Amino acid sequence: MSVTAPRSGREMPRFAGPTTFLRLPTLEQLSDPDVVLLGAPFDGATTYRPGARLAPRAVRQASDQAHAFHAELEHDPFATLSVVDGGDVNMPPHDIVAAMDALQSVTAEHLQAGRCVFTCGGDHSISLPMLRAMAAQHGPVGLIHVDAHYDTYPAAWGNDLHHGTPFRHALREGLIDPTRCLQLGLRGSLSSAQDLDFSRQAGFCVVTQANWDDGDGKERLAGFMKSLRGPIYISVDVDGLDPAFAPGTGTPVPGGLSVRELKSVLRQLRGQQIVGGDVAEISPPYDNAGITALIGADLLHTYVTLHALGRR
Amino acid sequence: MSVTAPRSGREMPRFAGPTTFLRLPTLEQLSDPDVVLLGAPFDGATTYRPGARLAPRAVRQASDQAHAFHAELEHDPFATLSVVDGGDVNMPPHDIVAAMDALQSVTAEHLQAGRCVFTCGGDHSISLPMLRAMAAQHGPVGLIHVDAHYDTYPAAWGNDLHHGTPFRHALREGLIDPTRCLQLGLRGSLSSAQDLDFSRQAGFCVVTQANWDDGDGKERLAGFMKSLRGPIYISVDVDGLDPAFAPGTGTPVPGGLSVRELKSVLRQLRGQQIVGGDVAEISPPYDNAGITALIGADLLHTYVTLHALGRR
Amino acid sequence: MSVTAPRSGREMPRFAGPTTFLRLPTLEQLSDPDVVLLGAPFDGATTYRPGARLAPRAVRQASDQAHAFHAELEHDPFATLSVVDGGDVNMPPHDIVAAMDALQSVTAEHLQAGRCVFTCGGDHSISLPMLRAMAAQHGPVGLIHVDAHYDTYPAAWGNDLHHGTPFRHALREGLIDPTRCLQLGLRGSLSSAQDLDFSRQAGFCVVTQANWDDGDGKERLAGFMKSLRGPIYISVDVDGLDPAFAPGTGTPVPGGLSVRELKSVLRQLRGQQIVGGDVAEISPPYDNAGITALIGADLLHTYVTLHALGRR
Amino acid sequence: MSVTAPRSGREMPRFAGPTTFLRLPTLEQLSDPDVVLLGAPFDGATTYRPGARLAPRAVRQASDQAHAFHAELEHDPFATLSVVDGGDVNMPPHDIVAAMDALQSVTAEHLQAGRCVFTCGGDHSISLPMLRAMAAQHGPVGLIHVDAHYDTYPAAWGNDLHHGTPFRHALREGLIDPTRCLQLGLRGSLSSAQDLDFSRQAGFCVVTQANWDDGDGKERLAGFMKSLRGPIYISVDVDGLDPAFAPGTGTPVPGGLSVRELKSVLRQLRGQQIVGGDVAEISPPYDNAGITALIGADLLHTYVTLHALGRR
Amino acid sequence: MSVTAPRSGREMPRFAGPTTFLRLPTLEQLSDPDVVLLGAPFDGATTYRPGARLAPRAVRQASDQAHAFHAELEHDPFATLSVVDGGDVNMPPHDIVAAMDALQSVTAEHLQAGRCVFTCGGDHSISLPMLRAMAAQHGPVGLIHVDAHYDTYPAAWGNDLHHGTPFRHALREGLIDPTRCLQLGLRGSLSSAQDLDFSRQAGFCVVTQANWDDGDGKERLAGFMKSLRGPIYISVDVDGLDPAFAPGTGTPVPGGLSVRELKSVLRQLRGQQIVGGDVAEISPPYDNAGITALIGADLLHTYVTLHALGRR
Amino acid sequence: MSVTAPRSGREMPRFAGPTTFLRLPTLEQLSDPDVVLLGAPFDGATTYRPGARLAPRAVRQASDQAHAFHAELEHDPFATLSVVDGGDVNMPPHDIVAAMDALQSVTAEHLQAGRCVFTCGGDHSISLPMLRAMAAQHGPVGLIHVDAHYDTYPAAWGNDLHHGTPFRHALREGLIDPTRCLQLGLRGSLSSAQDLDFSRQAGFCVVTQANWDDGDGKERLAGFMKSLRGPIYISVDVDGLDPAFAPGTGTPVPGGLSVRELKSVLRQLRGQQIVGGDVAEISPPYDNAGITALIGADLLHTYVTLHALGRR
Repeated sequence: MSVTAPRSGREMPRFAGPTTFLRLPTLEQLSDPDVVLLGAPFDGATTYRPGARLAPRAVRQASDQAHAFHAELEHDPFATLSVVDGGDVNMPPHDIVAAMDALQSVTAEHLQAGRCVFTCGGDHSISLPMLRAMAAQHGPVGLIHVDAHYDTYPAAWGNDLHHGTPFRHALREGLIDPTRCLQLGLRGSLSSAQDLDFSRQAGFCVVTQANWDDGDGKERLAGFMKSLRGPIYISVDVDGLDPAFAPGTGTPVPGGLSVRELKSVLRQLRGQQIVGGDVAEISPPYDNAGITALIGADLLHTYVTLHALGRR
Repeated sequence: MSVTAPRSGREMPRFAGPTTFLRLPTLEQLSDPDVVLLGAPFDGATTYRPGARLAPRAVRQASDQAHAFHAELEHDPFATLSVVDGGDVNMPPHDIVAAMDALQSVTAEHLQAGRCVFTCGGDHSISLPMLRAMAAQHGPVGLIHVDAHYDTYPAAWGNDLHHGTPFRHALREGLIDPTRCLQLGLRGSLSSAQDLDFSRQAGFCVVTQANWDDGDGKERLAGFMKSLRGPIYISVDVDGLDPAFAPGTGTPVPGGLSVRELKSVLRQLRGQQIVGGDVAEISPPYDNAGITALIGADLLHTYVTLHALGRR
Repeated sequence: MSVTAPRSGREMPRFAGPTTFLRLPTLEQLSDPDVVLLGAPFDGATTYRPGARLAPRAVRQASDQAHAFHAELEHDPFATLSVVDGGDVNMPPHDIVAAMDALQSVTAEHLQAGRCVFTCGGDHSISLPMLRAMAAQHGPVGLIHVDAHYDTYPAAWGNDLHHGTPFRHALREGLIDPTRCLQLGLRGSLSSAQDLDFSRQAGFCVVTQANWDDGDGKERLAGFMKSLRGPIYISVDVDGLDPAFAPGTGTPVPGGLSVRELKSVLRQLRGQQIVGGDVAEISPPYDNAGITALIGADLLHTYVTLHALGRR
Repeated sequence: MSVTAPRSGREMPRFAGPTTFLRLPTLEQLSDPDVVLLGAPFDGATTYRPGARLAPRAVRQASDQAHAFHAELEHDPFATLSVVDGGDVNMPPHDIVAAMDALQSVTAEHLQAGRCVFTCGGDHSISLPMLRAMAAQHGPVGLIHVDAHYDTYPAAWGNDLHHGTPFRHALREGLIDPTRCLQLGLRGSLSSAQDLDFSRQAGFCVVTQANWDDGDGKERLAGFMKSLRGPIYISVDVDGLDPAFAPGTGTPVPGGLSVRELKSVLRQLRGQQIVGGDVAEISPPYDNAGITALIGADLLHTYVTLHALGRR
Repeated sequence: MSVTAPRSGREMPRFAGPTTFLRLPTLEQLSDPDVVLLGAPFDGATTYRPGARLAPRAVRQASDQAHAFHAELEHDPFATLSVVDGGDVNMPPHDIVAAMDALQSVTAEHLQAGRCVFTCGGDHSISLPMLRAMAAQHGPVGLIHVDAHYDTYPAAWGNDLHHGTPFRHALREGLIDPTRCLQLGLRGSLSSAQDLDFSRQAGFCVVTQANWDDGDGKERLAGFMKSLRGPIYISVDVDGLDPAFAPGTGTPVPGGLSVRELKSVLRQLRGQQIVGGDVAEISPPYDNAGITALIGADLLHTYVTLHALGRR
Repeated sequence: MSVTAPRSGREMPRFAGPTTFLRLPTLEQLSDPDVVLLGAPFDGATTYRPGARLAPRAVRQASDQAHAFHAELEHDPFATLSVVDGGDVNMPPHDIVAAMDALQSVTAEHLQAGRCVFTCGGDHSISLPMLRAMAAQHGPVGLIHVDAHYDTYPAAWGNDLHHGTPFRHALREGLIDPTRCLQLGLRGSLSSAQDLDFSRQAGFCVVTQANWDDGDGKERLAGFMKSLRGPIYISVDVDGLDPAFAPGTGTPVPGGLSVRELKSVLRQLRGQQIVGGDVAEISPPYDNAGITALIGADLLHTYVTLHALGRR
């Protein structure tokens, strides 16, 4: 029987009551859950337009429509898992290293207690401390990375830990297994052709948007999925989606995935061992009518359900 | 010869003059038309975010670009039909039953005079009084229902007539013929797997978004359309569309239909006997740049044209 | 020593952590406080543009800047009072009577436990159940009512309990003492000169905006304040403010008070016995940049501080 | 007895029904009224940001709150006057001269039939054809001109009939009596000190914002009002108001009048013979939450009431 | 070696520094470039909602993310071409003929100096002077025209040079070679079936949206592309895109192309001789979160890259 | 004779051409000016909502209405001074110390060349490097500081150089002369009464908003101004204004100054020796209709004019 579940609208109207991720209890209310949803309200590593520090609260508010049963995956994860809102990690906005350490530390603690952790950023720099905690627990993980950007870029203004570098560091630190890494949604202009080299030389499965639209991207994705094994981390930067679907982001790039394509890709992870994940770069100041935050809530539900399905 | 037609921009600039549905005359100006477009400015049955009471005026304003000839259906319905803006039904905002009765009564009167009625809501509760009037005139009707939600849900807070229940009532009251009912666009989380049962047990043709994207939904839709006969009612809740296309709605759910898919589905109704319809749940306070209201106007034009094509 | 206080930004950045009124603990965390701040997420009695049901969460979010010390009243109410966020009252959106009863009941329970209650609406109908609970505890109360509208209007569409009638009912039910009632900010057009009669015949001190600007309003206000005694209830409809200051409201009327004038008037209540109050009609869908919700949070802090000052 | 009056919200909810200026009947419904409210949907003479062509419809929509009794002037003009929405004048957007002629011609026709005309622009170029019609009927009129700008500027790009020139032409054409002309609200930077010369040399009573705030402006205004006689035309450019109050305008200038100051000035016209007027430069694309359009509706009500008071 | 290139974010953060098209130098900084990007800040020929005059500056601001390498075309045009921001053409807003002449003249001067010109409008009337200059230099050109509208419509209000007529004039003036003209994205209602005749009788390849979705449009497009030869002009009206992708436009029509489809079509022009182009009808006042302006910048990069690829 | 002046709208329409502060030339175009206007696009020291990094470009765009003659100060500063847009200082967003050093260094260089510098932030941390450069050139300066906040607060999360600390550092470093320091606009809640101590113990003239409204603030301001001597630095945080006037800011506090009050205060500086200044905390993502950025441009014009008047 479900010990936690999104609070029903019959119990309290959906526009009322506490705003927590997926209308779930808090860690104070249920102290030893199976899955923890964290907020990482940090955008101090942003190189362009800030605002992602405000995303966790926006996604909590956009969680109004949460129900237990994931219709598209045809599964109620709350029937078998207790899931809670673990609150916001206390990340100082002016100190990237301290902020990353705080997130890594909280995540590691949960992982060590046998919990799964999904995090709502924050800018994309949050993936590095998350992966550090994940790898410490699980060894190098596979990575499903959806993004308009490679995020393997060089340092900027002497700073090597910004929101465009997490996956370069993750590879170099041995946190991810490159043979099990997918990058999807990549597009837009680049400084030079060399920007493409890192991912390809690393051995990632790279599916650019152009390749998805005009080339063999869908086939390569299917091949990648087929051979995928082991613990997997999912990282969705909402700018992987087209700005029409996700206007509320700091670095939008025209011509991205639709929400339905993203959801369809994620459905292909059914049965995989999902050990953690994040949704990054939601920027509420640009989020007309809050439609991007809704996607954040939807992704958290999907992550939890995939995790439940992989445990069975 | 056309007795009514959208007022030409050459006659009066499109940003000027009276704002009526499709720039048509009013009932005061032409008292015995073939088709009446009604406004149902009511959102008193909304369970989440209100605002749909403001939709009729927004759709009238978004009717600026109306012209006579429906290019995609290659037909000018105004060449054979007189069509008017029938004004707003006077629906008290705090009394669901009285509001429904008012809409049913006005609609019934037009139907009895041999007119076809299409209504711009208002929240989706408006479909029930519309269907009551339709069935009284035509017997049980077929239903094309586009929506993210089943709208066959249980009562809420002791109230069984809210915007999530019209089609459960319609079935139970015998207003719709379940063998001729289609539900399209369904998605998002549910309270439990049982939420799916009503429509399936009723015998509706249910095409979920996931089934449309990854399954046999398109084929089943084609099969449904092929065998469709008799009087048909069309009900489009704009949240059947993705929030990217229809941000102006009360209960948006990421991952829905595109406008082009919706229009393509509706084109498949060419030749059917369309006896009425509605567009529901446009919520202007959330409608960035008014793009959702534009869809409302476009749907009214399409409904009228399908009606004209089915009469021939 | 303070047992509750707005959570410091040093402890958790102000854009992070739980969103509660004034960053205070919840009733779950501190079960027997001196003062309770309630949310009344109800707009089912609105006659024009809805949206106020979303105000409590908006005001909680706008509480980010809350600190303990009220600089303008030069007092820290949290030094002597424990104050909590009492959560949202469960008010069914489609049943005005049941919703009012729920709010009255929760308020009464707190009052009976010796607590003071301030409520964040919701539409202005919430004042009636609040005053019913107040009068049951304290007998007829004095009223400071700031509003563009008299809210003593007749029934609408057969419904006598809408957001424009609370103070007519309150007078007739003997909940308020008319000799201690002030109405401030009144302006805009009226159905007829008779609309003015109710308040004047009741014996309220009525200061219209025109009278405030061109007449003896300020003097009459000062006189009223000077003679004011006994338990007082404060009700601020944010449309008493000019739409420039409070765009986020359902029925804005140009030409209202500035925030500074409102705050200056409230400062004149220093030393009075404030037994309860509300802030009503904040409508987030119209609240550009959230500036109206900020006023809501500021008013709650002011109410609590006035209460503390009146107890000393 | 009143033959026309704003449609009551009891008769039809205020968010529903036809949108006409002040919820009044149309000229089609009442063909020989005392006062006509015209829409002048033209912004083809704008030199900076366009959008005012969309104002008449926005002001009609913002007329929702219209009631008969003007509380601040304590008068119901509809008790003695029949007032109608005269619809939009058909003004071609690309031809300033033709557009002006169209407005002048429609206005003249109404004036000749003994009606008073108030017009909702449109950019401020509309004042010139209005004044031409006024002067033809009444001889040179007095002018109450509220604006951030003098609108007596030189031609731009060879075009002498733009929205910054109407009052220079009006003076030169003898349409206004300079001894009875007031300019109020003037502020912001100028090309040179010479920009000030025209109005002062013409003999206008010029009260700049700085003079109003720090100088003898209020006294001079009072003196002007005291000696004012004869037929008066009122022209309010909403940019005379501060952008906080009137963000929806094409050429906002920080530091302007409040709505209350404007209303207080207009109240000083009680008893004057108001023969016509306009409200110009409302630009809906910039009008957050529609608060500027509300002012437009309020001004029309005030103009009509002043006209009624002056006739008595 | 590249003589010009988008300024690197490493050199100056992308939210800082001068805003020029694609972060390129100005004509003042580099006086004899290969390619000039012009701004045409003119919307004086708009028949519906104005605002496109503000597009050039919005697109310059949206150029923040510009980098040299066009990932989807796998080419860095700046490696071989010097490209500059040529500034805004001085187009008087009230004089369509003079404005067109100014744009034609500036463009012609650059063409005569051997430069390629791409222009950011401005309303779609800008295509006519551009094509006049192009044809004078190159003879009749081929045309890739993406739009919801045919823009071969009749005169309006006696004015034959408005934003809905450029391609009718272009054909009649012999500026375009009809056998090499494509129209894509056409949809929405029309005055009559005759509106379709012009393009078809002219011999254009016309692919309506309905034909693209349900018919043989994609095949016909491929056939057109295959046989395409000679100098080509690209004209993209952003209303060819769906309003979800391009809300910031004056005349949006639901049901258009996605950005990815547009980009995929343009990629098919690889190798063609692109001599010029424009992007028209971006209207910043309606551009939520600026996502339409981003497309403008992306198109300019694509145009330049296609030009570079065609020169090789 | 004027060597620089805001570019006339007659020369280039005000919605077109390069966007520079006050439509002035750049430093590249005029290399040895009297006054430099700098952009400081930095918000890395913000403790609450970021966004001020985007302000310089917004203020440049809002400079459209700039003309030479300051009507309220009745002076054309460009008649005697050459003034240029000095561009944006290159401030790395993730390194507060480096960013501050960059701004100090650029400013110092201009000061040493005998130029006056006014800077458009950026968050309020920019005042510290500005004052360091000022004091190095001029010795301790007087300070006119308009703000809702004291900005003398303690370190946050171990960081002592955030946007709430510049004036504490400035005093401690001896950059300002406390006997010549004014703080105006202060309001809102505080951590404790001790927050007030710093400024008062330092000897600043502190005029809180409450004191301005209900106390002797205006008199004390007049006294301060009367005795003011020597070099003065002006620092306006736009949150000193009410959010109605300046919604576009990171930390809005209800109940602030009007624009007219601010301008009136600044006019009292006529004749003072103004050596530099800044406008801080404009945050474009929250700036509805851009009305806050307009104030930024207006302040720059006022600063330059005051500087000119003080030199005479």
